[in-house]
Amino acid sequence: MSTEIPNASVPATAAVLYEPLLQYQRQEQQPPLELQRSQFNNTSQVAIVGSNLCPIESLDYELIENDFFKQDWRSRGKIQIFQYIFTKWMLCFLIGLIVSLLGFFNNLAIENIAGKKFVITSDMMLARKYMAAFLVFTSSNLGLTLFASLITALIAPEAAGSGIPEVKAYLNGVDAPAIFSLRTLFVKIVGSICAVSASLNIGKAGPMVHTGACIAAIMGQGGSKKYGLTWKWLRVFKNDRDRRDLVTCGSAAGITAAFRAPVGGVLFALEEMASWWRSALLWRAYFTTAVVAIVLRALIDVCLRGKCGLFGKGGLIMYDVTSANISYHLKDVPPILVLGIIGGILGSIYNFLLNKVLRLYNFINEKGIGYKIILACCISIFTSCFLFGLPWLASCRSCPSGASEPCPTIGRSGNYKKFQCPPGYYNDLASLFFNTNDDAIKNLFSKDTDSEFHRLSMLIFFVTCFFLSIFSYGIVVPAGLFVPVIVTGAAYGRFVGMLIGSHSNLNHGLFAVLGSASLLGGSMRMTVSLCVIILELTNNLLLLPLIMLVLLISKSVADAFNGNIYDLIMKSKGFPYLETHAEPYMRQLTVGDVVTGPLRIFNGIEKVGNIVHVLKTTEHNGFPVVDEPPLSESPVLFGLILRAHLITLLKKKAFLRTPTPIGPDAFVQFSSDDFAKKGLGNGDKIEDIELSEEEMEMFMDLHPFTNGTPYTVVETMSLAKALILFREVGLRHLLVVPKVPGGVPVVGILTRHDFMPEHILHLHPSSARGRWKRLRFQFPSLGRLIREL
Amino acid sequence: MSTEIPNASVPATAAVLYEPLLQYQRQEQQPPLELQRSQFNNTSQVAIVGSNLCPIESLDYELIENDFFKQDWRSRGKIQIFQYIFTKWMLCFLIGLIVSLLGFFNNLAIENIAGKKFVITSDMMLARKYMAAFLVFTSSNLGLTLFASLITALIAPEAAGSGIPEVKAYLNGVDAPAIFSLRTLFVKIVGSICAVSASLNIGKAGPMVHTGACIAAIMGQGGSKKYGLTWKWLRVFKNDRDRRDLVTCGSAAGITAAFRAPVGGVLFALEEMASWWRSALLWRAYFTTAVVAIVLRALIDVCLRGKCGLFGKGGLIMYDVTSANISYHLKDVPPILVLGIIGGILGSIYNFLLNKVLRLYNFINEKGIGYKIILACCISIFTSCFLFGLPWLASCRSCPSGASEPCPTIGRSGNYKKFQCPPGYYNDLASLFFNTNDDAIKNLFSKDTDSEFHRLSMLIFFVTCFFLSIFSYGIVVPAGLFVPVIVTGAAYGRFVGMLIGSHSNLNHGLFAVLGSASLLGGSMRMTVSLCVIILELTNNLLLLPLIMLVLLISKSVADAFNGNIYDLIMKSKGFPYLETHAEPYMRQLTVGDVVTGPLRIFNGIEKVGNIVHVLKTTEHNGFPVVDEPPLSESPVLFGLILRAHLITLLKKKAFLRTPTPIGPDAFVQFSSDDFAKKGLGNGDKIEDIELSEEEMEMFMDLHPFTNGTPYTVVETMSLAKALILFREVGLRHLLVVPKVPGGVPVVGILTRHDFMPEHILHLHPSSARGRWKRLRFQFPSLGRLIREL
Repeated sequence: MSTEIPNASVPATAAVLYEPLLQYQRQEQQPPLELQRSQFNNTSQVAIVGSNLCPIESLDYELIENDFFKQDWRSRGKIQIFQYIFTKWMLCFLIGLIVSLLGFFNNLAIENIAGKKFVITSDMMLARKYMAAFLVFTSSNLGLTLFASLITALIAPEAAGSGIPEVKAYLNGVDAPAIFSLRTLFVKIVGSICAVSASLNIGKAGPMVHTGACIAAIMGQGGSKKYGLTWKWLRVFKNDRDRRDLVTCGSAAGITAAFRAPVGGVLFALEEMASWWRSALLWRAYFTTAVVAIVLRALIDVCLRGKCGLFGKGGLIMYDVTSANISYHLKDVPPILVLGIIGGILGSIYNFLLNKVLRLYNFINEKGIGYKIILACCISIFTSCFLFGLPWLASCRSCPSGASEPCPTIGRSGNYKKFQCPPGYYNDLASLFFNTNDDAIKNLFSKDTDSEFHRLSMLIFFVTCFFLSIFSYGIVVPAGLFVPVIVTGAAYGRFVGMLIGSHSNLNHGLFAVLGSASLLGGSMRMTVSLCVIILELTNNLLLLPLIMLVLLISKSVADAFNGNIYDLIMKSKGFPYLETHAEPYMRQLTVGDVVTGPLRIFNGIEKVGNIVHVLKTTEHNGFPVVDEPPLSESPVLFGLILRAHLITLLKKKAFLRTPTPIGPDAFVQFSSDDFAKKGLGNGDKIEDIELSEEEMEMFMDLHPFTNGTPYTVVETMSLAKALILFREVGLRHLLVVPKVPGGVPVVGILTRHDFMPEHILHLHPSSARGRWKRLRFQFPSLGRLIREL
Repeated sequence: MSTEIPNASVPATAAVLYEPLLQYQRQEQQPPLELQRSQFNNTSQVAIVGSNLCPIESLDYELIENDFFKQDWRSRGKIQIFQYIFTKWMLCFLIGLIVSLLGFFNNLAIENIAGKKFVITSDMMLARKYMAAFLVFTSSNLGLTLFASLITALIAPEAAGSGIPEVKAYLNGVDAPAIFSLRTLFVKIVGSICAVSASLNIGKAGPMVHTGACIAAIMGQGGSKKYGLTWKWLRVFKNDRDRRDLVTCGSAAGITAAFRAPVGGVLFALEEMASWWRSALLWRAYFTTAVVAIVLRALIDVCLRGKCGLFGKGGLIMYDVTSANISYHLKDVPPILVLGIIGGILGSIYNFLLNKVLRLYNFINEKGIGYKIILACCISIFTSCFLFGLPWLASCRSCPSGASEPCPTIGRSGNYKKFQCPPGYYNDLASLFFNTNDDAIKNLFSKDTDSEFHRLSMLIFFVTCFFLSIFSYGIVVPAGLFVPVIVTGAAYGRFVGMLIGSHSNLNHGLFAVLGSASLLGGSMRMTVSLCVIILELTNNLLLLPLIMLVLLISKSVADAFNGNIYDLIMKSKGFPYLETHAEPYMRQLTVGDVVTGPLRIFNGIEKVGNIVHVLKTTEHNGFPVVDEPPLSESPVLFGLILRAHLITLLKKKAFLRTPTPIGPDAFVQFSSDDFAKKGLGNGDKIEDIELSEEEMEMFMDLHPFTNGTPYTVVETMSLAKALILFREVGLRHLLVVPKVPGGVPVVGILTRHDFMPEHILHLHPSSARGRWKRLRFQFPSLGRLIREL
């Protein structure tokens, strides 16, 4: 570095900082990036600016190489490394432990609240007080829903819905605000218990995943600053990669706690949630879910001794369909093929309708909190009416002689609900409707019950569940999709089994399992993870080939129509999710075609006033640093500096009176904690920093804090090829350099938004009219197929 | 492009091509790259030069962007794309079908050959002709081993061993020659059947994986050219990514066929085999294994009707330990912890010893084919002696009264072998030794057999298996490791169960399963995939928490001592496997520190003679193309051209009389097939191309065939950071550009070898003495831990 720099090299006003030098033709042709961005923020919940996943923005030592971090890395001792390793494993253990306890508590609470409700109403029914029973049933459901929607709407609106799309987006690098705050966690747990107990047709698996991710995120950032719950010794995770790893483990733990499916949980996190995956992470997620599985196993031991109230001996959600000798032959295959195909079609219709209903609900919900709560209450009342009213349509059936359970079941939930029937008779529709979803699934999956249900009852149940679950998801309570889809699919499968009747040897319980698989495959579009989750739920490995077949078919069929339900929800929420594959038209465009300006560049030694001005007038998160004469012979790209680091430097007032490079002793005033990634939403803002006039005229040497080796691509590279680098390495900023050196050392910065199809098609509408785009519109499935090549 | 270039711009001799210009200080300091390379080739089987996995070297349209490919991509019609998609899925289906048929045939053959052998010897034993029985047993084993080792040594030495390390290395980008040839496939199938039937303590799962990968590779390249078995319509896979995908699916199918574990197969391919993984690949692998599972299920239906000879009703390898109510409690956990810890230690000892024995065997095998075969025969004779001799040590035990099987078993394999015992008695050691490994595992895993075996018998069996399997793996026959480890682990677990005795409620069959899990975890170090494979083998999901616990512990313990068995084998074979993580000292070195010269560079329009000279005198696979004045104002990096493409151009004689750029019409003489990736080992060689003196004086315009947008890194980037890009994107060549532009436009090329620790530590021995290296040597486990951070 040179030692003396004349003042003249620093321009006076920031507005024209280096733009004359960096005037690049394309910048004028395109509207500024901020305008483009706004179109993604169609729901106000998303803040892209604070987004913080990808390691290059984070303080990952491997990706940000500046002198300061290098110094800090060299000074790390063995003890710090041991502390780091130990804490990371310790946290995984704690996440597993807490999530399993919460999952258990969750189930316990739901079974007891909902169970109590059903016992009271059943007792009234037994006393023939039908109207009173209806009123108690409806009002308790309404009360629970009201409470759940109130706390959700008032305390943490982020807790509404499943949470899986939000976590998935976070793991992809999109950070919606407050999704991992302590209040979201609280509302998610309590709200989910109340909403599920209120007999709404919603699930608890999605909220469990969000809960697990929340716990992981809060522990990973060392507690919640806002509520004073912080642990200093947890603060070793200074970068996003570690936090992302923990959140992945947390979501795996969530599925495990919900379904008691440890292997399914790991695979779910791998297949559906994670955008970046390393084998070390597989190992860590496996550890976490193993802890959950073992703790749950121990807790169930407690329940088996009858100490858990109405939370029965079944032990969490687990539909044991072990029938020692399930046998199936070639002639059973055609019906299963048909089941899979129709299941796939139903799944894609489900996704389509759910998406439409969500858009409608968004429209209602945007009007205000009052509207949200009224909507939730209406759905609750409707649901109660259906659940209580529809069983009256079914005729009473006489109890089978050799039933394994008491018939009719009185008091507790069971296979044979008495409802309005005389003694010795049961109401088959009530056995399904007038029960928790878990019990309904258990009934549907159970074997040797082929004659328990009437064909019409099953059809009514299927149609009602299908539509109720679509209309229930979007209301302002924590609500999952797994269980409703499973119960709907089970009804569908059993109905198909009844239609096929004696043409197949398979029992109807098995058809119900396969029906669930087909609807899950058709709407969630997972493969291995769904397969393992269903196996772990039903505890019968002999089903494996059939389940694989059904999933294969239903996913293939449904993929021809639309996308994964979570992707649709993410899209409707406006998350800029970065896909792995490149769209075909991205091969025709170069990165130079999409970078938009104006580009803000800093000099290696920059005036404080300029930095403050640029930070206040733009929302960019990264700025190229260029050394100009006399610092170098010609303009040279020195590197990339992050907004967060600039703000830290401004806050610490690391200023120089003259534009001279600072020596290594300047590091003394900083600790690596200063540059550590802040907790979500806790980053400092430029507006909070107050500087005097005098300070504004001083200088900062940015060199030691600039990432000197950012990844770069040449401007002629195709967008598709740049996307591979951007996505695989997990970048936030990708510098574009000119093909021919000599003039401008940097052409632009690519960020996530530059890869969004909406952005590209806005800049280059002709791409949409191109052959490839046309092809996709004609054959919606072909686009997907091409991507999966 | 300019139109006229004076001749003078092309130097006369290739030797000094651009070196004066590109003289870079570091080049003189280091020995040339080729010298470094030789150290990896410590076994002659590895040819790095032809290595062909990573897409940038391959013709992946997304990564190689030259004018020709762009043109070709634009001209691809819908029909070609449909053909491509259809063929790819079709191939997955065919791979699944063929692998399942082969797997079935494999099991059928082994069960019948080995079964016949045991029936004959048992009959002789029954007639008290002990010596004759021994001779028949030993000679049939010797004959089978001799045949297997002869065909392996003479026809395809590549088929020796498990094949998993080779396939894993291929998927990482290291292509050992002939591992996927048709003769290797043949020897692998036949050799494996013979060797396993010869009662050697080796497995069939590893060879099945290699077989599956082989089939996939051969189909992916459109058949075997050498034997004239080619299918033109399969030739749509012109790049390595497609072939790699197919090989991954093939290896998943292999595990599925071996263990009837479709989900385990997918996970095995994901966790152990694949170096790059996309969700599309998960879907495709799932499809393949589903086909295998369904076909196997159908074939077993055939066998259940008794049409498969001695291949019994058990139906492939599947140890059904379904005991409806396995219950375990907190007090069972401590013994299982101990089991896991000791299992982990045993696993790492196993790896250590196997590695040592392999080195010893390598020494013997290198002496010649005769030595190889003698070694194999010696091992066979030893094994026969042990199997036949050791049961004599055991005393006869009286048959249990309520045994579910006939006791003693006569003729067929079964739980109670009569051996030399009087009627009404059985020999417990013979039930284990004098059986196929599959039957021994079945016996060990079976429940309600706690009193069947004597404690000492189990110890003898465990110790014998442990050492026999270590000494059997390295001989020149196709040999897997899975089954020996499972059987050894089962003996170990059962022995522990016997020692614990009444202190635990768990039955000994369960202990055997957990013992297998612990030894597998300790030597193979997989987590989720092993867990699922064991579950699918034993068909009991209730074991899940225990198996997870055992695997967790044994892997953690074993990781503290040494690495995964397959990694050790790969290392001893000298494969330059590229790890995901960076070693700590890589953070201290920049890429500039490791690139070694001399760098060979071509001009955009180059003299044919120069190209031929450079291709003949170097083994580099990629060459930077630089435009010099007068083509450009200053030297500009145009891109990177591949050796294979240069050879194609030379072969097609695309020469110019004057150094003028060619127009787009020049593409007419090429089709994309010319540049398609050749089948393994079928690439053209520069030596085969004959050019006249006149042609040598002509020119070639390299621009249209040069990848104009290679990925680049700046010379000051740390090696660790460059490795992330190199590994994640899957590169073959990474261009290093100077920090300050102006002089040389390219500093060097990074290849896989530049990231090999041996290479780096050779160049910078001080790194080894550094703090980090020292730390690793002191605490071998810490290095691994740091990497997994």
